[in-house]
Amino acid sequence: MRRTKKLFRTRASKEGLPPGSLIHIGEAPADAVSVSIFSYGEQGLQETCSETVDLSLIRPKPDGVVWVDLEGVHQVETVRSLGEAYNLHPLVLEDIVSTVQRPKVEDYDDYLFVVVKMLLPLPDGDFAAEQLSLVLGRGYVLTFQEGIRGDAFEPVRERIRSAKGKIRTLGADYLLYTLLDAVVDRYFTVLEGFGERLVNIEEEVAMHPHPRTLVQLNDLKKEVIYLRKSTWPLREVLSFLERDDTDLICDATRLFLRDVHDHAVQTIDTVETFRDLLSGMLDLYLSSLSNRTNEIMKFLTIIGTIFIPLTFVVGLYGMNFKYMPELEWHYGYFAVLGLMVAMTVGMIFYFKHRKWL
Amino acid sequence: MRRTKKLFRTRASKEGLPPGSLIHIGEAPADAVSVSIFSYGEQGLQETCSETVDLSLIRPKPDGVVWVDLEGVHQVETVRSLGEAYNLHPLVLEDIVSTVQRPKVEDYDDYLFVVVKMLLPLPDGDFAAEQLSLVLGRGYVLTFQEGIRGDAFEPVRERIRSAKGKIRTLGADYLLYTLLDAVVDRYFTVLEGFGERLVNIEEEVAMHPHPRTLVQLNDLKKEVIYLRKSTWPLREVLSFLERDDTDLICDATRLFLRDVHDHAVQTIDTVETFRDLLSGMLDLYLSSLSNRTNEIMKFLTIIGTIFIPLTFVVGLYGMNFKYMPELEWHYGYFAVLGLMVAMTVGMIFYFKHRKWL
Amino acid sequence: MRRTKKLFRTRASKEGLPPGSLIHIGEAPADAVSVSIFSYGEQGLQETCSETVDLSLIRPKPDGVVWVDLEGVHQVETVRSLGEAYNLHPLVLEDIVSTVQRPKVEDYDDYLFVVVKMLLPLPDGDFAAEQLSLVLGRGYVLTFQEGIRGDAFEPVRERIRSAKGKIRTLGADYLLYTLLDAVVDRYFTVLEGFGERLVNIEEEVAMHPHPRTLVQLNDLKKEVIYLRKSTWPLREVLSFLERDDTDLICDATRLFLRDVHDHAVQTIDTVETFRDLLSGMLDLYLSSLSNRTNEIMKFLTIIGTIFIPLTFVVGLYGMNFKYMPELEWHYGYFAVLGLMVAMTVGMIFYFKHRKWL
Amino acid sequence: MRRTKKLFRTRASKEGLPPGSLIHIGEAPADAVSVSIFSYGEQGLQETCSETVDLSLIRPKPDGVVWVDLEGVHQVETVRSLGEAYNLHPLVLEDIVSTVQRPKVEDYDDYLFVVVKMLLPLPDGDFAAEQLSLVLGRGYVLTFQEGIRGDAFEPVRERIRSAKGKIRTLGADYLLYTLLDAVVDRYFTVLEGFGERLVNIEEEVAMHPHPRTLVQLNDLKKEVIYLRKSTWPLREVLSFLERDDTDLICDATRLFLRDVHDHAVQTIDTVETFRDLLSGMLDLYLSSLSNRTNEIMKFLTIIGTIFIPLTFVVGLYGMNFKYMPELEWHYGYFAVLGLMVAMTVGMIFYFKHRKWL
Amino acid sequence: MRRTKKLFRTRASKEGLPPGSLIHIGEAPADAVSVSIFSYGEQGLQETCSETVDLSLIRPKPDGVVWVDLEGVHQVETVRSLGEAYNLHPLVLEDIVSTVQRPKVEDYDDYLFVVVKMLLPLPDGDFAAEQLSLVLGRGYVLTFQEGIRGDAFEPVRERIRSAKGKIRTLGADYLLYTLLDAVVDRYFTVLEGFGERLVNIEEEVAMHPHPRTLVQLNDLKKEVIYLRKSTWPLREVLSFLERDDTDLICDATRLFLRDVHDHAVQTIDTVETFRDLLSGMLDLYLSSLSNRTNEIMKFLTIIGTIFIPLTFVVGLYGMNFKYMPELEWHYGYFAVLGLMVAMTVGMIFYFKHRKWL
Repeated sequence: MRRTKKLFRTRASKEGLPPGSLIHIGEAPADAVSVSIFSYGEQGLQETCSETVDLSLIRPKPDGVVWVDLEGVHQVETVRSLGEAYNLHPLVLEDIVSTVQRPKVEDYDDYLFVVVKMLLPLPDGDFAAEQLSLVLGRGYVLTFQEGIRGDAFEPVRERIRSAKGKIRTLGADYLLYTLLDAVVDRYFTVLEGFGERLVNIEEEVAMHPHPRTLVQLNDLKKEVIYLRKSTWPLREVLSFLERDDTDLICDATRLFLRDVHDHAVQTIDTVETFRDLLSGMLDLYLSSLSNRTNEIMKFLTIIGTIFIPLTFVVGLYGMNFKYMPELEWHYGYFAVLGLMVAMTVGMIFYFKHRKWL
Repeated sequence: MRRTKKLFRTRASKEGLPPGSLIHIGEAPADAVSVSIFSYGEQGLQETCSETVDLSLIRPKPDGVVWVDLEGVHQVETVRSLGEAYNLHPLVLEDIVSTVQRPKVEDYDDYLFVVVKMLLPLPDGDFAAEQLSLVLGRGYVLTFQEGIRGDAFEPVRERIRSAKGKIRTLGADYLLYTLLDAVVDRYFTVLEGFGERLVNIEEEVAMHPHPRTLVQLNDLKKEVIYLRKSTWPLREVLSFLERDDTDLICDATRLFLRDVHDHAVQTIDTVETFRDLLSGMLDLYLSSLSNRTNEIMKFLTIIGTIFIPLTFVVGLYGMNFKYMPELEWHYGYFAVLGLMVAMTVGMIFYFKHRKWL
Repeated sequence: MRRTKKLFRTRASKEGLPPGSLIHIGEAPADAVSVSIFSYGEQGLQETCSETVDLSLIRPKPDGVVWVDLEGVHQVETVRSLGEAYNLHPLVLEDIVSTVQRPKVEDYDDYLFVVVKMLLPLPDGDFAAEQLSLVLGRGYVLTFQEGIRGDAFEPVRERIRSAKGKIRTLGADYLLYTLLDAVVDRYFTVLEGFGERLVNIEEEVAMHPHPRTLVQLNDLKKEVIYLRKSTWPLREVLSFLERDDTDLICDATRLFLRDVHDHAVQTIDTVETFRDLLSGMLDLYLSSLSNRTNEIMKFLTIIGTIFIPLTFVVGLYGMNFKYMPELEWHYGYFAVLGLMVAMTVGMIFYFKHRKWL
Repeated sequence: MRRTKKLFRTRASKEGLPPGSLIHIGEAPADAVSVSIFSYGEQGLQETCSETVDLSLIRPKPDGVVWVDLEGVHQVETVRSLGEAYNLHPLVLEDIVSTVQRPKVEDYDDYLFVVVKMLLPLPDGDFAAEQLSLVLGRGYVLTFQEGIRGDAFEPVRERIRSAKGKIRTLGADYLLYTLLDAVVDRYFTVLEGFGERLVNIEEEVAMHPHPRTLVQLNDLKKEVIYLRKSTWPLREVLSFLERDDTDLICDATRLFLRDVHDHAVQTIDTVETFRDLLSGMLDLYLSSLSNRTNEIMKFLTIIGTIFIPLTFVVGLYGMNFKYMPELEWHYGYFAVLGLMVAMTVGMIFYFKHRKWL
Repeated sequence: MRRTKKLFRTRASKEGLPPGSLIHIGEAPADAVSVSIFSYGEQGLQETCSETVDLSLIRPKPDGVVWVDLEGVHQVETVRSLGEAYNLHPLVLEDIVSTVQRPKVEDYDDYLFVVVKMLLPLPDGDFAAEQLSLVLGRGYVLTFQEGIRGDAFEPVRERIRSAKGKIRTLGADYLLYTLLDAVVDRYFTVLEGFGERLVNIEEEVAMHPHPRTLVQLNDLKKEVIYLRKSTWPLREVLSFLERDDTDLICDATRLFLRDVHDHAVQTIDTVETFRDLLSGMLDLYLSSLSNRTNEIMKFLTIIGTIFIPLTFVVGLYGMNFKYMPELEWHYGYFAVLGLMVAMTVGMIFYFKHRKWL
């Protein structure tokens, strides 16, 4: 049931509100939000992490990049203050705190607004999903994470801290690429876990179909629906970023975005394959069930067909007629036993002939 | 049945009439129509509400906006007089009173004509639907509601009255946006209710399939068909408004219309998810049913297979042959009882082996 | 079977003939054809009706319109003489008499050639279909009706005669629009009838599935296939007329054609809805059937499971062993009766527990 | 099985060969090929037919047309010599002798290369198919037929010989049109035969489903797959010819090609209808089968439910207890008979109530 | 299960790594890699083969072509050194060693990067698949094969060595074409093998459906999914190469690439046909199963319906009532035997009438 609900959380509770109303939609954890700011350039890195936004740190230095990362969007005041500091459109802020957005990208001339779904693999092969909003401006990237359960960005932070690779020498657009790449990479981990579950259930389906198996298949199907809803628009987002002629993204970075776009297409490919496999498994399940019913019917028919005539015969000689010549014969009993053995053997040959045995 | 009919009300009764004939198509309630006029600008607001159109009020003041809202289109004379006052094309008036239109938008240079379906959630999770026609001209918006059962516009009226937000300072195009936004917001409430019903029926389907469940699933399916018919063209309408270069809509408003367009895409997404879920439930229903038949068959087979041979044995010794040596044995009866216990135990082991028990 | 054949009448009999061969394809009624000519303008109307074409009447007067309407195309000579009088291309004439055309429009510079299917509702909710070819030239419209069973044009004729509306003051393109509008309006009547039949069959499907119901569903499905084949290309035809830049159609008329185009989209919408409904009914039918089989199985299982063990018990005490102590007990019979009542009650509780009762 | 193989003959045997290798792929009949040459113009006609190509005849005269028709492409030397004489690209020759091409058209500037499938109706309603390659150059048309079993061109030859119609006065592009028209006309004959078979099988499916029927349906389905593979690309070919701006085809001929294009669309339409009908028949088949199983179950249940309790009753009074009061009653036997009649009547009423009888 | 896994190998293990990280993804055989270099021109050929890259050989001579072929990409150092020698982008190298790419083509101005799947037919009709990356630069082609199990290029090498055909006189683009042609030709061999397996299983499906058959069908379906995933993007690759205006490919070669494109379309056509056939077989399987269940039910019903009433009759006269007149009749026994024969004959006639026999 939980899985079904996940598929259609909507913004129904906002009915009647004027546009730009900052109402958080989604699960609201009690925990406090956390704001981490990375301000770096070729020369150095300044990293802070607190529960509020220190507005003095958010202006990018010349040739430097500022990355403001907010974990937890349920505290709308923090979002509003960030939005005002960077002069974001009210509709952008509204979308950030409403965590039921479809992945999309919007060009506001001065900045790009990107929404994607971030998947988090859970230990049991299942996955959680949360909304990630990104804003790419001149010299800065803002990321708004729905949840506070951790993210996919630790390797990126590590690379910035250790100045590994070229990340410290490149601009905000490259940071955006790196973050999106990290998000998409997570998809593969989730898909791998999903695939394992599919393989595990497959033998059960073919060999021992059970009502429980059907419910599991149905659950997997719902997760595939969710994955489709997340990945198809993601591809559009990345194809927009790769192609669009906004000057916020330089050509060298576009090459890298093409790579992420490619990965997004791969995830779609994999999700579609899962879908085909699942639909094949449902067919397999139904056929296995039919096979079993068929087998059971066959068994019942064989037993019934052998014993019903025999029972008739013994009933026949159980009748109490005064004059029944066979009953008087000395070997009548054995003759009837012989007759019944012959009938049984005949039946068995018939079943062999029909390939029922 | 009612639901089936809702899906294909047509304009058949207009056959043979010349174009522009004002014939009301739809349910015609006995109640009188009501016309409310909002004439507002930055300075003030004039609000009237009556059963007829006061033509002296419908001219917009410079920099002001007039919103004429007609509830109930079955009184065609009122529509005609409004149409003449605003110089609308006869085909527009014909479409307004014929409440079987598909959502669409038409550009008549001087004004835009928009038709959408307005959904009204009912207490039981179901929903009613009525046609809403909107005309956007220079300085005015006309809205024609099919029914008189209430609408989605109360928050908008409240905002105009209280001058909350920027609505009083902006033009007629912003009013059009606000109204469409209110309509689309209602969709989310309806979809949420629909989703609840889906979740409720899901357990019944998987665990206790019943013919009644099937009829309910079929009803839900029809409603999804209706929702699809309403939402897909709605998206086209909004995408037209967002992109078209008519000068009736200014660029700032287009940003807001993009937001509504986005919401429309979300509703489609949700409706398509419902469709997938429903089709999955139908499969689940059939599989559950097969499972149950299989289980019943298995039970019958086990009972039959155990008792049919036993019945044969007792019949055997019920025969009346004169010479049946076993009958004479003192412990013959108990030997047969023992034999039957052995047969039963053997069968049970066999069933365990076949995993039928 | 008749319905199946209707779906694939082809032009196979024309194999090997040179292009432009006037061979009538279709049912050839014995009756004579009828040619009616309306020659009208703002000033007046001249109407004639005969079995042959009076060539002196077919030239349009300046600012006047001539409408030549031929009912019955099986008499190819009449078609040929009209074709020569108006200088039509041989391929056009060939298509007119071959009544297996797909709806289409072709631009021959001097005239437009349009083929559509005209539906005629029959009393039992079914419908007949015939081919209607229209030629729009400068100042004239030719219509070629396949059959002579009547048409959808009576209201148009009436409007021309009574000079009602603007029809007498407008050109041939407006006449073309009026005729197409009349044809499309008929579709709604046919669709309404079809919808009624769907609603009628729906309860039967859900409650009392019967082999006959299945055949009816299959017949309805074939009619939906036919309706789809007629309506989808019709939309293309109207969208072509609405958009094309031929100077045979003036801008004011294009507005009206947009309206018909709109109606054609509505018919497609309705046909697609019928298709979804029908496919849902087929599922419903199969599920109802499975439900019934399941129910019957359950009944048989309950009866069998209760009586098979009881029969075993009575058989047991019908054995003729010399020494069976129970038989000697005075209340043995009543003890066995009691045992059997207990078994039955136990079974019934078991069935209640399994929810089979 | 044969039908299955027909669907995927591939060019696998050419693996590893350089491009332009002339290897015949397909069935290679033992018979000799035949080359017929028509060289005609307004003035006259020269017709020859032999087993080899007489290269002196293949040059078109001014204002004349040469048509070289080769029946049987398994003799690759003949193809090569023709190819060299007309200076065709090696890839064209390779495609001509490899009879597993998909219908296509290729523009080589100096000539157009067209491949289509030619269908030949067989007496039993089935059809054979062979590849036809056409080359249209300036003043000449080459046709390469895969087989030697006859073709669809006899009427065309007759028209050239008798100078009927305008064929002798028009160019090579008109000849190409005439040939393609003859090929497409054959499709209708084949489709008509296919349709007849569908109609014949339909009653069997609905009324007397039999395993054999299923195999037949499956065979028909394979033929529809083949027809789809032949017709869809055929439409693309004709639409290319109708639209392309090669100067090898003049405008007057394009009008005729539009007509063939139209016919190709009709064949696709018909094939798609067949597909829908077949899929409907498969559903019908399965439903009929379910209906029959249901009916048989019902019968078994009725018989079983009536007799199982009766058998219990007679068994009851067959017990050998010493003290069974009923047995001593004088009319006990008749009382039991009466009881059993009452039980049977009750059951029958119950079945009537459940609508099983 | 193995087959299922093959379908969704992903790059999950690369999560968190910076772009351009050379991590081999795929099966890593223990064997050493092998590098073969062909440097040829019209004058001559130099061929070397070793385990490392001899960088002195990889520069193309003027008017000559260098083909560097690496078998085994698991040794990333070799890939890196080649990449550096030819100045390839880090993302290209990353894609080469990550063998889970989707077929694609990327234009890096100085060179084209192409990824396709190479299929290798296995003896049992099954096939293996490996990734092949190609780089086309000015005067050189690099090929990177995933595996070392052999390839499809032996005929190409032979043609270069023997200077057969025009390959030695043409540029690197022609070599690229030749290699892609060899890869696509292999597809046909694989498809032919797949087709054979389909034909083999078809009879089993229709005549002797067995649970094992179902598992085989499911396996075939997975392979079709894999083939689709390989062939559809392959077509895009070839259509890009045929159309793109990069100056790395000359016009003459484009004609040949159009031919390969054509073959790729043919493979897709064949794969889609396989898909249709397989889905038809699954239907056939289920229907056959239903047929068998139906047949078994019919048999049980006939046996049961004949003997259950007979058993009742013999039970009737086995009752021990004191007064049962029939029992006293001399020929009562024979009268009952006669009655039972009559009942049986009646039943058989009834079954004949219902067409159950």
